[in-house]
Amino acid sequence: MNAIISRNKFIHGANININMNENILNYETVSLDDKESALVILDQTRLPNEIKILHLKTQPEIWQAIYKLQVRGAPAIGVAAGFGLYLAAKNIETNNYDSFIKQLYEAKEYLNSSRPTAVNLSWALNRLEKIAVNNSNKSIPEIKNLLLAESIAIKNEDIETCRKIGEYGLSLLKDGDGILTHCNAGQLATSKYGTALAPIHLGRERGLNFRVFCDETRPLLQGARLSTFELLADGVNTTLICDNMASQVIKNGWVNFIFTGCDRVAANGDSCNKIGTSGLAILAKYYGIPFYILGPTSTIDMNIKTGRDIIIEERPESEITDLWYQKRMAPEGIKIYNPAFDVTDNELITGIITEFGIARPPYSESLKKIFEQKNAGLSR
Amino acid sequence: MNAIISRNKFIHGANININMNENILNYETVSLDDKESALVILDQTRLPNEIKILHLKTQPEIWQAIYKLQVRGAPAIGVAAGFGLYLAAKNIETNNYDSFIKQLYEAKEYLNSSRPTAVNLSWALNRLEKIAVNNSNKSIPEIKNLLLAESIAIKNEDIETCRKIGEYGLSLLKDGDGILTHCNAGQLATSKYGTALAPIHLGRERGLNFRVFCDETRPLLQGARLSTFELLADGVNTTLICDNMASQVIKNGWVNFIFTGCDRVAANGDSCNKIGTSGLAILAKYYGIPFYILGPTSTIDMNIKTGRDIIIEERPESEITDLWYQKRMAPEGIKIYNPAFDVTDNELITGIITEFGIARPPYSESLKKIFEQKNAGLSR
Repeated sequence: MNAIISRNKFIHGANININMNENILNYETVSLDDKESALVILDQTRLPNEIKILHLKTQPEIWQAIYKLQVRGAPAIGVAAGFGLYLAAKNIETNNYDSFIKQLYEAKEYLNSSRPTAVNLSWALNRLEKIAVNNSNKSIPEIKNLLLAESIAIKNEDIETCRKIGEYGLSLLKDGDGILTHCNAGQLATSKYGTALAPIHLGRERGLNFRVFCDETRPLLQGARLSTFELLADGVNTTLICDNMASQVIKNGWVNFIFTGCDRVAANGDSCNKIGTSGLAILAKYYGIPFYILGPTSTIDMNIKTGRDIIIEERPESEITDLWYQKRMAPEGIKIYNPAFDVTDNELITGIITEFGIARPPYSESLKKIFEQKNAGLSR
Repeated sequence: MNAIISRNKFIHGANININMNENILNYETVSLDDKESALVILDQTRLPNEIKILHLKTQPEIWQAIYKLQVRGAPAIGVAAGFGLYLAAKNIETNNYDSFIKQLYEAKEYLNSSRPTAVNLSWALNRLEKIAVNNSNKSIPEIKNLLLAESIAIKNEDIETCRKIGEYGLSLLKDGDGILTHCNAGQLATSKYGTALAPIHLGRERGLNFRVFCDETRPLLQGARLSTFELLADGVNTTLICDNMASQVIKNGWVNFIFTGCDRVAANGDSCNKIGTSGLAILAKYYGIPFYILGPTSTIDMNIKTGRDIIIEERPESEITDLWYQKRMAPEGIKIYNPAFDVTDNELITGIITEFGIARPPYSESLKKIFEQKNAGLSR
């Protein structure tokens, strides 16, 4: 059963169950229900017009939710996959280990096919598989409990990583600061806090007030639909602008920091993120304001030397051509260039904020140190 | 009667009269019909989905066309207003001068109210009024003929101005160059050629091929709907991008020049144009490519010292919030900042291309020289 919970504040059209006392941040991006029998997600395809909570019990339901971007953002997808595979394991009715592991592997491959290019998806599924493989001497009920614990651990680690990124980011800010962000690297992309938006949510917990400007982020409008939504729900003073307005907003003196997430960071600090990020970094340099990338160390790939080695995905033309009142907004026959990401040169980046501290130029050295710290922590 | 002419190439939905042999550039942005009894315009609110030619005979029809942006762009509005007031004069049935001038003045005030802030609108109407006032000794039919000649002169001067801007701009280009543009400062905003797009259309007449990138230009998508349309119709190799993709396109090495129009230029060269222009100029500086402003001297206001003295119009929030499949695309309660223009600092501008030549830094001197040339030309 899918409960539809909407409220006056966010609703357009005919919907039900308006309760202004509820706080949207109480609805988690991704979680298990109390009986550990369903994956519970906030349907992001309905935002901002409707708050719809999905309770997903079957594997096809979970597969669809990932495929259709009802849950999105690399960390959130990883957590959803972990819970999803646990639910698959829970429902395997056998006491024979060989049969169990075979069925678990089939379920893993099925979920893994929902978004084949999402690294966190296969990473989380592999973590659970490893638990099952390494504990073949234990009973099936015991293995199921270990899988539950592992899936919960993935989520808790995600929250802790985001909280630490938030702490480091917050250390730069003071009450009343203006922050400009792009796309959605927020709570809706993770289990809690987000990455680029973590300092802001964490600051809110401590009673700080910021003024945040959200680029709408064409073509898919994650800034307009998602970042504004979660920031408003957290009581943040939030202003939506079109991407091409950032220059004027910064010129007006309203922005103290630019914070964005990242999809992949090269060993030299070159950072790949949502298309439009590099332009913001160039504006920041011109106007003399700091530009920070915020992301977990899992997005830093020390095997990639520079941003030139990052291949930029190009997405369908229709994302650009067909977003205007359901009529085409561009003539037939027009060529479209629709890169999903761009790469920001390291020289434009003031710092890269991770859960193990803030890396600063030269990144070839500072990122190495971040990983030394990470590895030291892991080996302790 | 309004003729609807559509073609396969541009059409979506059920429409008629497909004729692929016709060239859209044969349809003028604004003209008088052969009998000098109707204002003929290409309805820009229907583009790019439908080519609809409007034949407007009554004053309310003409008023509506300007008000509803069926004809748009400062020069095109001026030309439409000139023809509109001539048509009003033609239909005044009196041989008494006082009665004629009174009715003409009423018609002028009526048309002038269609878009009160458009300078070219009142400028063109005043030109015609002056003809009527200065020729009070002539017969009413003679005055009507003088008004017709003046309205045609306004259009011819617009074409000549744009052609000259095109010549100066074209002198910078070579076959195969890549040009990035923003908004629509093209033929659709003028009688012919346009301003920023004039070098490209003029180059096409001479068999040159350019590769043009059009920013879609949020929120009103003039780049996606209009610039792509007129460039495609002229056979130009045209690629549409979202505004936030310009940085990547330039980084790819695809852009040799950025050409944009201007709404107002200050005496020091600071240039006010469609929101997003200043960001492009900053990208051009960072990547080391030339950034040119193209516009008639009528947009240069030597009484405005710097861009700081230009007040930026803010437009309705709904332009940003409600453009996503007719659903709201931003949450209720979100603040919106929607400036229609921004100001590009003179230090970012490689040159300002006018019908009297190309001004280069320092603009406080070069723009003065442009006006000396203009005034010398006028006094000859």
